[in-house]
Amino acid sequence: MHTTLWQNLERAVQQTQLSKDSLRLIPAAGITLDVSAQRWSDDIAAAAQALLNHHQFAERRNALLQGGIANPTEGRAAWHTALRAAAPIRDVAEERQRVTDFVRLADAERRWRNVIHIGIGGSDWGVRLAVGAFGYAGTWRNVRFAANIDGHAMAGAMAGLDPRDTLVVVASKSFTTSETLQNAQRAIEWLKGAGIADPYQHIVAITAKPDVAQAWGAHPSRIFKLWDWVGGRFSLWSSVGLTIALAVGIEAVAGLHAGAAAMDHHFAHAPFASNAPVQMALAGVINRSILGYGSLNIAPYDFRLGYLVPYLQQLEMESLGKSVDLNGNPVAMATGPAVWGMPGTDAQHTFFQWLHQGSDGAPADFIVCQHADHVWPEHHTRLLANCLAQREALLSGKTQAQAYEEGLARGLTAERAQALAKHCTHPGGRPSNLVVLPQLSPYTLGALLALYEHKVFTQAVFWNINPFDQWGVEYGKALAGHITHTFLHQTPKTGPHDASTTHWVTTFSPPDNALESAP
Amino acid sequence: MHTTLWQNLERAVQQTQLSKDSLRLIPAAGITLDVSAQRWSDDIAAAAQALLNHHQFAERRNALLQGGIANPTEGRAAWHTALRAAAPIRDVAEERQRVTDFVRLADAERRWRNVIHIGIGGSDWGVRLAVGAFGYAGTWRNVRFAANIDGHAMAGAMAGLDPRDTLVVVASKSFTTSETLQNAQRAIEWLKGAGIADPYQHIVAITAKPDVAQAWGAHPSRIFKLWDWVGGRFSLWSSVGLTIALAVGIEAVAGLHAGAAAMDHHFAHAPFASNAPVQMALAGVINRSILGYGSLNIAPYDFRLGYLVPYLQQLEMESLGKSVDLNGNPVAMATGPAVWGMPGTDAQHTFFQWLHQGSDGAPADFIVCQHADHVWPEHHTRLLANCLAQREALLSGKTQAQAYEEGLARGLTAERAQALAKHCTHPGGRPSNLVVLPQLSPYTLGALLALYEHKVFTQAVFWNINPFDQWGVEYGKALAGHITHTFLHQTPKTGPHDASTTHWVTTFSPPDNALESAP
Repeated sequence: MHTTLWQNLERAVQQTQLSKDSLRLIPAAGITLDVSAQRWSDDIAAAAQALLNHHQFAERRNALLQGGIANPTEGRAAWHTALRAAAPIRDVAEERQRVTDFVRLADAERRWRNVIHIGIGGSDWGVRLAVGAFGYAGTWRNVRFAANIDGHAMAGAMAGLDPRDTLVVVASKSFTTSETLQNAQRAIEWLKGAGIADPYQHIVAITAKPDVAQAWGAHPSRIFKLWDWVGGRFSLWSSVGLTIALAVGIEAVAGLHAGAAAMDHHFAHAPFASNAPVQMALAGVINRSILGYGSLNIAPYDFRLGYLVPYLQQLEMESLGKSVDLNGNPVAMATGPAVWGMPGTDAQHTFFQWLHQGSDGAPADFIVCQHADHVWPEHHTRLLANCLAQREALLSGKTQAQAYEEGLARGLTAERAQALAKHCTHPGGRPSNLVVLPQLSPYTLGALLALYEHKVFTQAVFWNINPFDQWGVEYGKALAGHITHTFLHQTPKTGPHDASTTHWVTTFSPPDNALESAP
Repeated sequence: MHTTLWQNLERAVQQTQLSKDSLRLIPAAGITLDVSAQRWSDDIAAAAQALLNHHQFAERRNALLQGGIANPTEGRAAWHTALRAAAPIRDVAEERQRVTDFVRLADAERRWRNVIHIGIGGSDWGVRLAVGAFGYAGTWRNVRFAANIDGHAMAGAMAGLDPRDTLVVVASKSFTTSETLQNAQRAIEWLKGAGIADPYQHIVAITAKPDVAQAWGAHPSRIFKLWDWVGGRFSLWSSVGLTIALAVGIEAVAGLHAGAAAMDHHFAHAPFASNAPVQMALAGVINRSILGYGSLNIAPYDFRLGYLVPYLQQLEMESLGKSVDLNGNPVAMATGPAVWGMPGTDAQHTFFQWLHQGSDGAPADFIVCQHADHVWPEHHTRLLANCLAQREALLSGKTQAQAYEEGLARGLTAERAQALAKHCTHPGGRPSNLVVLPQLSPYTLGALLALYEHKVFTQAVFWNINPFDQWGVEYGKALAGHITHTFLHQTPKTGPHDASTTHWVTTFSPPDNALESAP
């Protein structure tokens, strides 16, 4: 971190306030980012550009988009943009065609009335998001998901389905993911239990390790590839889209790709001040590292985008939940925020109280569609009004004097109005973004997701961290194996556990041989 | 806030570290709270007790449990504990019986194959939570929910159902909630459209304003009461449980009540050091106001408890998202944290990276059942192992030397192992709770929810704030009405909007007369 450059940005930010007169709209790939309620000045712009230059933003963006080593700690590319290119490299094109052919044939034969999609994290959220967005009122295929190792997840996913018309999609980049392989095993037993002679005829495997999947039993014609250079949290763009295509059509996958590719183009070419991911990233860095906001609220004012929240939680927090820089040195400031949220208007009845009057507050990203896909305009008008109202309240607040006047107008005595006014003021001055989609379509959703991807990448450049590794996830896997060993043998594999863990390992001690069959 | 008392607590906390040797288990109402991974010392205990005494904890707890004015800014009780008492007051007993009779009759007649539950916030989350927990593999009644004003929510809820065998439950304490009344209107049109002569025969209304519901059209025999002294976020314990009973049985509602009542008894009588809600509250206050953690992660290691997260978000953030005390003075410290989370193991593949290696981290509440309700012990053993492993990693961390040794063991060169070790260390020292349920049952879930309710209440006593009002929610409703007015008339009702709001109000201008029929 270059101290002087950083201090310039800090100083510029501290000399700036949110302005009610600001109007800054950035069109990008068919959607519009409104950053009016973020701090902005010529000094901020100059300082931010200097920081990005210092961290070789242009070179790193090039490496990202052209398949260079964007992920140095793992020594590989993070080339998810290649998966959605209009004219992809041959490998990608071939696999895309195989997925299309599979889905077209299944549709033509009206096969697979039920689909169970088994995957976790990056192999799960993107599919849930797209199926939820475009299949929110149901689809002719009954699509279920199982991610969690908790057996109730798989039990729930299989309940009531006819195995004979069920396709099980098993998505795991490494094809070693414990949850996914265990759940897939339950599916195979279930298929066998229904008298299906070759259960692997009902299995599709999506993986970067086709040989491992084949050794496991999957048929080569039903194995769809992704590549080492596709990070787990970017799997949506890969063959994992097969389930999306089965649920809501292969055209939806093509639309997602096209919208994301348009945002890739915008990100590559738009100048600094009108580059939507860059401006969103700058606001994020200012809010987090300079103004000290610990979290970021995602507020999609669209019922269909419920899974956008966990999708972005993974994208943001796995990417930016780091505190050492590319050289392994501690980052001198706070990095990625906690990301959380919920569709509005539900969120207004759940935690907006805290956003308005809590001691901390949080910046919020409002996301809304100008046009709805239903026939009740009064619902959509109210939805839009609520979205704009919450954002305005966060920005403009309400003074104690206003609250007092309102109390009087409601017929309270002066004394009561005065007392209550203290409880009814809103500080205001809280930053937010507004992202407006003309309508929710695969294209606009693709553009929205790529906007966040490139925002996250740009924030990582500001902080000089690697957004593409996730060493903290690896450690948990190893420790779980360690505790499983202790369960089996009642003695730790390496050093002793803490007292509480030891207590619970003893208390939870599983029934005899429960794990003997499990590796 | 009494400065000296508070400083005593601060000093005591700063002299304490988390200890791997600590084992502090608190049994309460059939579940166990493990606070071993929270700071604790005799000095902390003494300082915390002095603070609670200063804020008249015992008196305020009495008022809460006995229907006193626990909510002074609104001048009323917060007597949700009365709803779950084994021997309730007559009004409550009568209404409980009416709900039971309604459900028993419906079950006997095998009526209402479909139920659409319409409500938002407190009229929604508790029902979703209980139905999700005990109906995760489906129920014979097909239960749908519609909360959001977004028309896609109601469109999705009605899609594919036969109106002739559908009961619509409309839950709104005030019976003026905009979302709920709009969605109910769509349901009535849908019922009428199916040729049902009296659609109100298909409607149940649950409200504290039976006269308003009746004027709206509901039949008196199908109106179920709650009371002014039931806060919205405590509605689960009221007649709103009717939908739970229709979905998973009236016994489930009785079980929820019994478990919560047992926790009420524990909260009322257990001494300070072994009072689970009080100890959980103390840890929360220490983590938030002294150690500065901005958020709290909820990590239920149970697939069936997915809706526990939004349920607790409302409970915690609407209650504690305040920054003025009971007297209207600013609270001198940070109050309620942002609450977010997701069931594990999904969460491990989504944001645990951030919990382990992010710059801030967050305390986590792990919740797990000792016994599962499925037949695959290897799944449950792994689930338990993962839960304990994540908690251990947060507490114990991993040093750079350990990471280096692991790198060497994986066959890396010394140089590469050294470089990578910096990216693979975990600071550790991060606090957490573990709540262990013997099994997920209505009783244990009831106890768990009451544990959090009383924890939140106790934190409010520490901070001397009112956990039972929500003035910040009221403001948003008013502003949305204001912007709806601007949509209709293209001119603000009172002062001007900010530039961005003005821009979007113009851009989103609804089609002619879209709102004419809507009040």
